[in-house]
Amino acid sequence: MSDLINKKTQEVDAVITRYLPKEEGLASTVINAMNYSINVGGKRIRPMLMMETYRMFSGADGGETLGRFMAAIEMIHTYSLCHDDLPAMDNDDLRRGMPSTHAKFGEAMGILAGDALLNYAFEVAIGSFFANDRGTGAAAGPADRTVRIAKALSILAKKAGIYGMIAGQVADIEAEDKEPSEVTQQTIDFIHENKTAAMIESSLMIGATLAGADDEQILTMEQIGSDVGLAFQIRDDILDVTGGDALGKPIGSDERNGKATYVTLNGLDKAIDDVKKLTESAVSKLSQLPGSGNKSGKFLSELIESLAIRDR
Amino acid sequence: MSDLINKKTQEVDAVITRYLPKEEGLASTVINAMNYSINVGGKRIRPMLMMETYRMFSGADGGETLGRFMAAIEMIHTYSLCHDDLPAMDNDDLRRGMPSTHAKFGEAMGILAGDALLNYAFEVAIGSFFANDRGTGAAAGPADRTVRIAKALSILAKKAGIYGMIAGQVADIEAEDKEPSEVTQQTIDFIHENKTAAMIESSLMIGATLAGADDEQILTMEQIGSDVGLAFQIRDDILDVTGGDALGKPIGSDERNGKATYVTLNGLDKAIDDVKKLTESAVSKLSQLPGSGNKSGKFLSELIESLAIRDR
Repeated sequence: MSDLINKKTQEVDAVITRYLPKEEGLASTVINAMNYSINVGGKRIRPMLMMETYRMFSGADGGETLGRFMAAIEMIHTYSLCHDDLPAMDNDDLRRGMPSTHAKFGEAMGILAGDALLNYAFEVAIGSFFANDRGTGAAAGPADRTVRIAKALSILAKKAGIYGMIAGQVADIEAEDKEPSEVTQQTIDFIHENKTAAMIESSLMIGATLAGADDEQILTMEQIGSDVGLAFQIRDDILDVTGGDALGKPIGSDERNGKATYVTLNGLDKAIDDVKKLTESAVSKLSQLPGSGNKSGKFLSELIESLAIRDR
Repeated sequence: MSDLINKKTQEVDAVITRYLPKEEGLASTVINAMNYSINVGGKRIRPMLMMETYRMFSGADGGETLGRFMAAIEMIHTYSLCHDDLPAMDNDDLRRGMPSTHAKFGEAMGILAGDALLNYAFEVAIGSFFANDRGTGAAAGPADRTVRIAKALSILAKKAGIYGMIAGQVADIEAEDKEPSEVTQQTIDFIHENKTAAMIESSLMIGATLAGADDEQILTMEQIGSDVGLAFQIRDDILDVTGGDALGKPIGSDERNGKATYVTLNGLDKAIDDVKKLTESAVSKLSQLPGSGNKSGKFLSELIESLAIRDR
């Protein structure tokens, strides 16, 4: 499985690279900083989930429009890391073992690179309207295609904003200012659902939307994304306790920072058990969908299972 | 004229208010900060230019789609001010005589409020696809309408990003690190064209696009926006020297900060003369366009002239 994931990661990287801006002109410093942040070695989970969901539903590889949205979701994810790492936020000088964007380019460029990635994500995704792949999804006509792109843009914006990722980030920052004992399970759930799960939901929903899935199927993908996202974040909290220096930050940093996590609230055993349950729930929902038996459906299912036991 | 501008400002304010997010939920702090930043007393020039351009070309008032794009352009302008004022950028605690966003809500919320405004701008503008005004512009059918919205989104993203406003901001930050004598007229022009003019071009082009103007007319609006934007920024530099405490920052702050401006490079007399010439050029181009003789066309022309002699 890990060989296949490596191959898919390379495939995703090649797609994203196609949409990175050229490092030229009087703004080249910020473009350098954008591309550095994107290329610093992410796992590409979000665009990979989007790509395979698209393929599962459509049975086709996907053209320029899919590629643009894959690049956009990774750009938005990357901007959120750039800004999270800033001195006024988590103040991390390292990200995946490398200097974080502001540590390498200075604080002003750390802010501007994040802004630029968020804006450019929309610029690239909006470019889908003028893309060459006349048929997005199986047998989509021009009118259908436009509606799908409009819906996908709407999901992209909503899940990244104040009703999605940003809401989670705000709640997270505010929770850090509290005593760990004051942070409730409800708050932790809200943070995980929005800060982490929203962008995974977005990836799955956009893949399905561009492939022409119906509203009920898109809703199922959202629920799968919620399961996978929560499991993903709990796994992160577990790895912070049990090890995995490949995360790029010291083991036990949450605990030393006095941060309430899923593990501090529920204990390690329950956390491990919940990751397992959430993963089973996601895989079970996926198996009900058309296409789940094809190559991409099977890969998606295995990818979700592998995320639950990942060590970085 | 100033009475009419006040009336139009109120009209624009009412439109923008309709699209501001409700201050509720676990992310309410950042929503407070967004709305504070928007409501701190901007002149609303960009949405006003967009609204009147739309009306000049279409002869109609404009519905939900126009309103969404008006709100979006003001949100993007406001996010840029939020981030400009941050300690790592211009480090301004005051904006229009009031505490800047980070000064009031803390630095983390200053960053997040900016991020949230940029993201929400796209969220609101993308919502146009699902808006009720079936006919955007005079007699636009559904297919036409979709194309216009897609084009308008594309302009919105491009002019705000690394080929527009952000490029200007990056060049501005880098110019500040140089000796004033090292900053060339070419660099100052690049900064003004991108940091200031791009968003004014965007406003005029989007107004025209949504109203159904043709490509040549949209290009003319871009050129008018360039003239108006450069004149606007030179006027700002002039006011910094000659007075106008209503700008909300101390007179002569550019000079004390050792900042190269249009005025330090060209002298006050040439600067005043160039504002006049750019304004005449803009008004002359406008007068060639269909609709320039109607109420909105005349207002636009007078608004552009009044910006050239504004004292705040």
